[in-house]
Amino acid sequence: MKKFSKSEIDKIVAELDFSKIEGGLLPVVVQDHKGKVLMVAFANEDAVRKSLETGYTHFYSRSRKSLWKKGETSGHLQEIQEIYIDCDQDTLLIKVHQLGGGCHTGYYSCFYRILDEGKLKIVGRKVFDPEEVYK
Amino acid sequence: MKKFSKSEIDKIVAELDFSKIEGGLLPVVVQDHKGKVLMVAFANEDAVRKSLETGYTHFYSRSRKSLWKKGETSGHLQEIQEIYIDCDQDTLLIKVHQLGGGCHTGYYSCFYRILDEGKLKIVGRKVFDPEEVYK
Repeated sequence: MKKFSKSEIDKIVAELDFSKIEGGLLPVVVQDHKGKVLMVAFANEDAVRKSLETGYTHFYSRSRKSLWKKGETSGHLQEIQEIYIDCDQDTLLIKVHQLGGGCHTGYYSCFYRILDEGKLKIVGRKVFDPEEVYK
Repeated sequence: MKKFSKSEIDKIVAELDFSKIEGGLLPVVVQDHKGKVLMVAFANEDAVRKSLETGYTHFYSRSRKSLWKKGETSGHLQEIQEIYIDCDQDTLLIKVHQLGGGCHTGYYSCFYRILDEGKLKIVGRKVFDPEEVYK
């Protein structure tokens, strides 16, 4: 699991551009080691700092207006392996080891449906029962 | 290359939630067939319609405030192979065949740097010279 020191975190955060999305947010793409994209969420500076400090992904919930540790309720944590930054320094790509499933619906990835003609067709793998996990 | 008819596009667009980001935008993750994430950009309804209609990715440029066909200047188009939609129906994942490079800096992917201790270390592959391409 990848963790960073306080001085490394300060240097990294200073490089990031949080100005592009209202509320000071960055889009974060989460991908597993096989290349599967699990989810996209948003992080503010606090969430980026927590992710780098703990080695587990943290995001900012726009609906609840609060910091959110991924998997805190479900136990389906994301252990950070590598963090990539894009050309504009306003987007992160985090490679993780996903415990359980990445999506609150029980699928391994949030992108469990493909556009098939005019319809949404389920192609993802269900790995847990949300009624059991979030009771 | 994946294209959709007018009636399919109307059905798909009706399923999408453009309300989460100011200006009616969705984040779009672009990935190649090997699982490499190339870029993240934003699309409004018009950009989604153009992508589905033509089979090439289109986005909305927040800085230029206009529709943008990826690769229009450089020739580095993205041919759409598959489109996935997330659980909240507010984010798209598009798998493409990337012609040339995905990043305006000349790298194949915009995520060409990894966080290595407090520094940004280049690990990506440079595939073109931007001074030649954008002259």
